[in-house]
Amino acid sequence: MAKKYTKKHEVSYYECDVNQTMTFPSMLGVVIKTSEEQSDVLGRGSDFVNSFGLTWVITNYSMEIARLPRVGEQITVTTQAMEYNKFFCYRNFWIHDEEGHELVKIESVFVLMDFVNRKMSSVNEEIIAPFESNKIKKIKRQEKIEKIESGLMLPYRVRFYDIDSNQHVNNAMYFNWIIDVLGYDFLTTYTPEKVLIRFDKEVEYGNEIESHYEQVTRDEGVLTRHEIKMQGQLYCEANISWKVSKQVK
Amino acid sequence: MAKKYTKKHEVSYYECDVNQTMTFPSMLGVVIKTSEEQSDVLGRGSDFVNSFGLTWVITNYSMEIARLPRVGEQITVTTQAMEYNKFFCYRNFWIHDEEGHELVKIESVFVLMDFVNRKMSSVNEEIIAPFESNKIKKIKRQEKIEKIESGLMLPYRVRFYDIDSNQHVNNAMYFNWIIDVLGYDFLTTYTPEKVLIRFDKEVEYGNEIESHYEQVTRDEGVLTRHEIKMQGQLYCEANISWKVSKQVK
Repeated sequence: MAKKYTKKHEVSYYECDVNQTMTFPSMLGVVIKTSEEQSDVLGRGSDFVNSFGLTWVITNYSMEIARLPRVGEQITVTTQAMEYNKFFCYRNFWIHDEEGHELVKIESVFVLMDFVNRKMSSVNEEIIAPFESNKIKKIKRQEKIEKIESGLMLPYRVRFYDIDSNQHVNNAMYFNWIIDVLGYDFLTTYTPEKVLIRFDKEVEYGNEIESHYEQVTRDEGVLTRHEIKMQGQLYCEANISWKVSKQVK
Repeated sequence: MAKKYTKKHEVSYYECDVNQTMTFPSMLGVVIKTSEEQSDVLGRGSDFVNSFGLTWVITNYSMEIARLPRVGEQITVTTQAMEYNKFFCYRNFWIHDEEGHELVKIESVFVLMDFVNRKMSSVNEEIIAPFESNKIKKIKRQEKIEKIESGLMLPYRVRFYDIDSNQHVNNAMYFNWIIDVLGYDFLTTYTPEKVLIRFDKEVEYGNEIESHYEQVTRDEGVLTRHEIKMQGQLYCEANISWKVSKQVK
């Protein structure tokens, strides 16, 4: 079975929004750091990956959220590089509370990209071996993301702080644009239960992106559909399922 | 002598920008957390302060930066509530590296605000006593912040994630608007040496603020002057001294 790596983290006030729960960018920051630390421990850190002219790129997240981590809470983040095929690596993350309850489960898809020609590379066995993931033939189908039928839009400029020390726009930053359009009233009434997101193209510093969204009422709660676009082209799309928040403020 | 409180922190990739050094919002987040922890330890946390109908507000920072903390570095943050007079509390912060070198020194001014009428309150002895700060008569004069003579401007909308779990726009977020206007080339050529900033009025969610700035060449490096304004009114002003960055990328 693939190796697991676990790390504790105390949730700080500056990682949380007015709901006193972790923001998506903060949560993904902590989560991805766990996988970077596992890679470092196994001698497969970014220097090693870069030595092949390659870099990791995340293409999909699928998140199941039982409850978002809260300010001051001690959480445990666990990661495991589950499986891989010729092009795709499937890595899971789990966030648990102090009593061991699962708060969040994230399934992700990673690919290796040639950082000169920005094209996808096949999975390099030397990079992947120490994680002891299962090699599979099948390409795992990702759950379908519903398109926007008739939406609204707000523009956002990619800021200097949206590009991280890895030199490109951190995937987690897309959530700044996706979440912000929903507005204060929505975001303090509803809490997310499920997120599907796909990253299609890379946004760059200085770009002015459009964050399109649409709200659909479902039997249980609300679904929001999201598309990050620029000049008519799709850069990222997401669906988020929400339920009425019952949390005590 | 006033009590000190110290905390270790490992600098994460998501706290850093393309220069591989900590962003201002991240640095201030970590720094302020230290003072919150000290307050909690002394039984003077936000619940206690709120029980008087009061909340802490920061009005000024003065920072001396020998070197910004780097990705992966283990830093030590120390805080001490130095002195106070009838209305103002003067708190210092220091960031040290693993060898004990001082990287950053921050002097700050805190006031207690009545959160109903949003007016400044005199310092409450019951709140301040356990910090063992020196009581002084004098109001410490803050270094003068130079005004913009002829500047440029970019607009920014206050986003949902700019308001933190303390329910208002975190002071650290002003740096998003102040820094971003300077642009990629400037921010990867120069590194900050000194920052003076004063927070005059509170920005709220949904506001569209103007980030004005001006660049002035000095004998040694560059000075940038900043003003955050809305409808002709000043909300925040800052001066930052920069030198050419010599860091190895």
